[in-house]
Amino acid sequence: MAEISIIGAGSWGIALSLLLTKNGHKVTVWSVLKDEITMLNLEREHKKCLPGVKIPNEITFTSDLESTIIHNDMMILAVASPYTRSTAKMIAPFVKQGQIIVNVGKGIEESSLLTLCQVIEQEIPQANVAVLSGPSHAEEVGRGIPTTCVVGAHKKADAEFIQNIFMSEVFRVYTSPDILGICIGAALKNVIALAAGMADGLGYGDNTKAALITRGIAEIARLGLAMGGKLQTFSGLSGIGDLIVTCESMHSRNRRAGILIGKGYTPDEAMKEVQMVVEGVYSAKAAASLAHKYNISMPIVEQVNEILFNHKKASEAVNELMLRDKTIESSDLPWQE
Amino acid sequence: MAEISIIGAGSWGIALSLLLTKNGHKVTVWSVLKDEITMLNLEREHKKCLPGVKIPNEITFTSDLESTIIHNDMMILAVASPYTRSTAKMIAPFVKQGQIIVNVGKGIEESSLLTLCQVIEQEIPQANVAVLSGPSHAEEVGRGIPTTCVVGAHKKADAEFIQNIFMSEVFRVYTSPDILGICIGAALKNVIALAAGMADGLGYGDNTKAALITRGIAEIARLGLAMGGKLQTFSGLSGIGDLIVTCESMHSRNRRAGILIGKGYTPDEAMKEVQMVVEGVYSAKAAASLAHKYNISMPIVEQVNEILFNHKKASEAVNELMLRDKTIESSDLPWQE
Repeated sequence: MAEISIIGAGSWGIALSLLLTKNGHKVTVWSVLKDEITMLNLEREHKKCLPGVKIPNEITFTSDLESTIIHNDMMILAVASPYTRSTAKMIAPFVKQGQIIVNVGKGIEESSLLTLCQVIEQEIPQANVAVLSGPSHAEEVGRGIPTTCVVGAHKKADAEFIQNIFMSEVFRVYTSPDILGICIGAALKNVIALAAGMADGLGYGDNTKAALITRGIAEIARLGLAMGGKLQTFSGLSGIGDLIVTCESMHSRNRRAGILIGKGYTPDEAMKEVQMVVEGVYSAKAAASLAHKYNISMPIVEQVNEILFNHKKASEAVNELMLRDKTIESSDLPWQE
Repeated sequence: MAEISIIGAGSWGIALSLLLTKNGHKVTVWSVLKDEITMLNLEREHKKCLPGVKIPNEITFTSDLESTIIHNDMMILAVASPYTRSTAKMIAPFVKQGQIIVNVGKGIEESSLLTLCQVIEQEIPQANVAVLSGPSHAEEVGRGIPTTCVVGAHKKADAEFIQNIFMSEVFRVYTSPDILGICIGAALKNVIALAAGMADGLGYGDNTKAALITRGIAEIARLGLAMGGKLQTFSGLSGIGDLIVTCESMHSRNRRAGILIGKGYTPDEAMKEVQMVVEGVYSAKAAASLAHKYNISMPIVEQVNEILFNHKKASEAVNELMLRDKTIESSDLPWQE
C-alpha cells in the first residue's frame, strides 16, 4: 500500500483516485477550488465530470495543500495544461527532494513550446518527474473498463514502482524511458482529433478517418523525432493508441468540436457548443510553431490551423490534403534499383 | 489513359473499376462466374456486393479470359484469398513477360504460409507483381469517399506508374518498396479485428479497443520484421491504417463476427450470421503457425485462436491479456541507468 496525493479533482484525477483506492492505496485528492472540495466531501460524486460514479469514503478530499503533499510516496499532477505551470509553482515549496511526480496532464505550453513535464521540471527541479499516458478516457477508467497505459520515467526502477502502483486487472501498465516522446504524442493528438472530427462532420467515411489518423501520427512522429523522442513511442499506447481513441470516441471533446466545424459551425461557435476546454485549438498553434522551429512538414496540422484561424473551409482543406504532391510513404526504405 | 483488366468482380474489383474509369482508363472486368458477368452486363449494378452503386457503360464485363489479359497495361487481381492460387494458375498461360499484376487480395495461404503476392509469383513467375493496400472499404471507395492507399512494387518506376493510374482527388496513393510488409499487415489485421469486435460485444469501451489495436499492430510488426518486412510499413496505411478501419468500421465483417462471439455466439454461429467469408478465422490459424515458426510472442493472436478453436470464453481471454506479466512497451529503448 502506498500513500498517494492527487493534485486536481477533474474527471481524470477522480478516475485515477478510484482506480488507486481499489488497488488498496491511501489516496488524498486536492483541488485549488475550495467549493469543489466541499461539494465532493458532501456528495461523494462529481456530477459534472463523472456523473453517476460513486466515490467511496476512503478517498480524502482536501484543500490543505501542505498536508496533502508532505506525506506521500507518489504525487499525481492532474490539472489542465493552462494551469500546469501555476500549479507547479504553487506546490514547489512543499515538495521534498526526489519526490516522484507523475504528470497526467496533456499539452504544450504555448509561450515556451515546452512539454508539461518540462514545465514541471523547470518549476520543481528537486522533483523526479514521470508521466502516465495512453488511450484512457476518464469516463471509462472511472467505470472500471479495461484500459492500458504507458508510464515514462528516467529510471527503470521508478517506472516499475509506478507500474506496480497503477496496475490491476482492468488497468494494464507498460513502462518506457521516453518521457519526451510520450509527452509529445499526448499533446499533439488533439490537433489530429479536430481534423478527424471535421472529416466526420463533412460526412466522409471510415477510410478517410483512418487515413487522417495514420498520416497524423506520421506527422507527429516526424516532429517528435526531431525534438528527441523515440520512434517506437509514437507507435505505442501514448502515440497511435491515444490518437485512435481520441479520433474515434465520442468522449473526445476535440473530436466533437471538429464534427461541428465540419458541419459548418465557426471554430468559436463549436467551442461554445462543446462547453469545455478544447485542448486541440491551443495545441494546433503550438504544433505549427514547433513544425516551423524544427522545419518539419506537417500538412494536416497546417490545414487545421488554416481552418481555425484563417477562415478556410474544412472541405477545401481535405481536398488540398488529398491532392498534395505524389509521394513515398516512408522516405527511408530502399528500392530494388 | 491505360488499358486495365481486373480479375474478380466482387465488391473490391467493382469499386476499383469505378475509380479507374473515372480516372479516364479503359477497364475490363473478368469473373470466373459466368452468371455474375451476365447479371452485371444486364443490371449494371452488383446488388449483393455494392448495392445502390450504378456501373457506367464504359466498363466492359467479360468471361473471356484470354482477350481480357492479352491487351492491357496493368492487371489487377481482386479475388478472395482461397482462390488466389487457382486463379493465378488459370491465367498464367496467357500472361506476358513483365506483365504488371497488382494484387489487391488479402490473406496468407494456410498450407504454405505464403503471402498472396508470393503465391502469385510462384504461379506466374514471368509477372511483375505489385500490391495495393490500405484503409479502403470498397463500400466507401465505390461511393467516391476520400481514401488513401499505398502501392508496393519492387522498382520505384513501377510503383510510380501504378500510383499515377490510381491517384485522384478522392484516392490518394503513396508508394513503397516493401511488398512483403504490406502483404503481412493486410493478412493479419483480420485476426485483431475479430478480437476488437469481441471486446465491443463484451461491452468494453473505446479504451479497450484502442489498446487491442495498438498492441495488435505491435504483434504484427514483431512477426513482420522477423519475416523480412520493414518497421515503417506497419506504422503506415497498410499496417496500422488498415487495422484501424477494420477494427472500427461496421463495414468489416470480421469485426461484426467478433461482436457476435463477444455476445456469446459460438464462432460457427457467428460466421453463419455474417453470411460472408470471415477471413480472420483462416488468418488466425496461419498467424499462430507463423508465430510458432518464427518464435514470436503474439498473445492476442494466441487468445483469438483459443476462443475460435478451443472453446475459451472471450471474457476470460481479455482477462488473461490484461494480467500478463508486467512489461516494457518497447524493449529496445535505453534507460538512464
